[in-house]
Amino acid sequence: MNRLEQTLELVTIDSVSRNEAVIAGLVESRLRTNPALDVERIGDNVVARTTGLHATRLLVAGHIDTVPGDVTLAEIAGDELRGLGACDMKGSLAVMLEMATQPAVRKSEVTWVFYAREEISHAESGLLEVAQLRPDLLEADVAILAEPTGGVVEAGCQGTLRVSVELAGKRAHTARPFAGRNALHRLGSLLHRVASYEPRTVTIDGVDYTEQLQAVSVGGGVAANVVPDLANCTLNHRVAPDRGREEAFAWLRGFLGECIEDDDELEIADWSPAAAPSLSNERLRALVALTGQPARGKMGWTDVATFAELGVPATNFGAGDPLMAHRSDELITRDQLDEFARVLGEWLASSGEPATN
Amino acid sequence: MNRLEQTLELVTIDSVSRNEAVIAGLVESRLRTNPALDVERIGDNVVARTTGLHATRLLVAGHIDTVPGDVTLAEIAGDELRGLGACDMKGSLAVMLEMATQPAVRKSEVTWVFYAREEISHAESGLLEVAQLRPDLLEADVAILAEPTGGVVEAGCQGTLRVSVELAGKRAHTARPFAGRNALHRLGSLLHRVASYEPRTVTIDGVDYTEQLQAVSVGGGVAANVVPDLANCTLNHRVAPDRGREEAFAWLRGFLGECIEDDDELEIADWSPAAAPSLSNERLRALVALTGQPARGKMGWTDVATFAELGVPATNFGAGDPLMAHRSDELITRDQLDEFARVLGEWLASSGEPATN
Repeated sequence: MNRLEQTLELVTIDSVSRNEAVIAGLVESRLRTNPALDVERIGDNVVARTTGLHATRLLVAGHIDTVPGDVTLAEIAGDELRGLGACDMKGSLAVMLEMATQPAVRKSEVTWVFYAREEISHAESGLLEVAQLRPDLLEADVAILAEPTGGVVEAGCQGTLRVSVELAGKRAHTARPFAGRNALHRLGSLLHRVASYEPRTVTIDGVDYTEQLQAVSVGGGVAANVVPDLANCTLNHRVAPDRGREEAFAWLRGFLGECIEDDDELEIADWSPAAAPSLSNERLRALVALTGQPARGKMGWTDVATFAELGVPATNFGAGDPLMAHRSDELITRDQLDEFARVLGEWLASSGEPATN
Repeated sequence: MNRLEQTLELVTIDSVSRNEAVIAGLVESRLRTNPALDVERIGDNVVARTTGLHATRLLVAGHIDTVPGDVTLAEIAGDELRGLGACDMKGSLAVMLEMATQPAVRKSEVTWVFYAREEISHAESGLLEVAQLRPDLLEADVAILAEPTGGVVEAGCQGTLRVSVELAGKRAHTARPFAGRNALHRLGSLLHRVASYEPRTVTIDGVDYTEQLQAVSVGGGVAANVVPDLANCTLNHRVAPDRGREEAFAWLRGFLGECIEDDDELEIADWSPAAAPSLSNERLRALVALTGQPARGKMGWTDVATFAELGVPATNFGAGDPLMAHRSDELITRDQLDEFARVLGEWLASSGEPATN
């Protein structure tokens, strides 16, 4: 099978989050065909490692789940494969499986991590499950997370802050609204303010991070003839690696300014920290050089932040256009797969011996 | 029991719209204690009538439902009763029940109407249910609708237009919102526009009507990391008696202007027409005289419009401050109940013989 066909085989297995048993089984059995690998199955996660030969350990990780959708529509047409998960991230997984199961001469040990439940709440992540049950399996000197990056190194990742807002008002009859205060009209001012947000861009280690602020849900209303006394809203703020939880929240509170009053509530609903770009790491700089293109910052949150918390410098690098992720017309091309395989193969072959930096 | 206690008894019965069976049962059994009344139960509506003595028929009507809320908080403190529905309109109902069940010498027949589901969509109104199933029960020469008016005649009523809005956007990842369009941010502009509305006032038959525009519900949101592609909103426009359905809708569409685009939807969800003031009616002028205060226009929609459609000149006149309606601290006072009882009693006693106008 060529790489498009190998990817198609993975795409046609429905592996929406929490339903990864079948694909994990296929990955496990495929990895077990290589006697040089120690293969461990932990829940629906599979970790395969070479051991005992080298002092340095490289880690390559990818998630095996997808967002919901119909996988039966997938097909190869010419040099393209269209189908749910083609880009995020079964193209990269196919290349990882190919490299893990073929003989290769390397200067480092390699750990291959295939994990479940990345596309849903971080608390359910299969990578966290492995980190809790077998943290030894995630030890490495450096890691690549093979999320789609268009074949470019996307360094670090931005944090993501979810904030819930409750705006207070005062009920009244809608024929006499001057006797009350409409919380939805106050919400209008808040949304107007959020829509006026101008992204802040920060440059760290030579790559740019552009923050974002979006309203992701609203609600409110009592009855058709009642001025509502409560409006709620959830905001999602993408936070560059130079700011932590409290700093980001304080900035947001300041930005919303007079839209938030004493009787209102503004609370952190969820926070996932950013990861710094780690481009001072010699092996990640080598990866950037192999791609032939400058690194850029990762705008979304990814598990490079999880590796950072585990003390493993990591970066995003994978096959496929990140703008295609989660779209019904998601696609991957033969060239994207081949280029990813070339860079990954050369990096795995050339990286070795403890780094000096 | 005094009138505050009689009102409290009704207030403590939870009778949110569509849940009027218990209070209708109490009203029915109370009315049946007066052998002079023909009592009819139609669904959760109760109609009681004297018959056979006089040529003229007066009708007094009130709704038995309330907006949602906690009725267990109701209490009497000194000369006040605070509690959901105290003012809208269980104070008036208590006086109606008192007058319907006590012996009285009158020159007219009297019809007492207690009806369900006034506080929700007009299509569900219990008064329409009676009008459809037993229109004969609503025949009268003149009607008082005992909605709270502060003891003043509130003539006619404004129409009420409910419009549902759906604003379109385009989904994207919240880390790359520039690839989509946030429908909630568009909603912000719409709500901002609605909040900027300046009321129009019209004078008819010497009374003023002031229109209003309020957002009454909003919703929208896909997931915590997705730029939403749809936002919805419901607007409530109160319309003076000089405008009909299409005129009011056209005005609203024009007012919203560029907030509504081609891919959006703007639809009439509900319309209840206005009623003209009917102050040319002799018996309604007599009622105004008994109150000792000039009439004013009714800003909210009421079932005087339903009576107008049935050919019965009607007006709003009831106990309690209309500005308190639908508020969590709704209240009625002993003086308000006593004054309503005085005027209603005198009007029922003095009105009689066919009017000449």
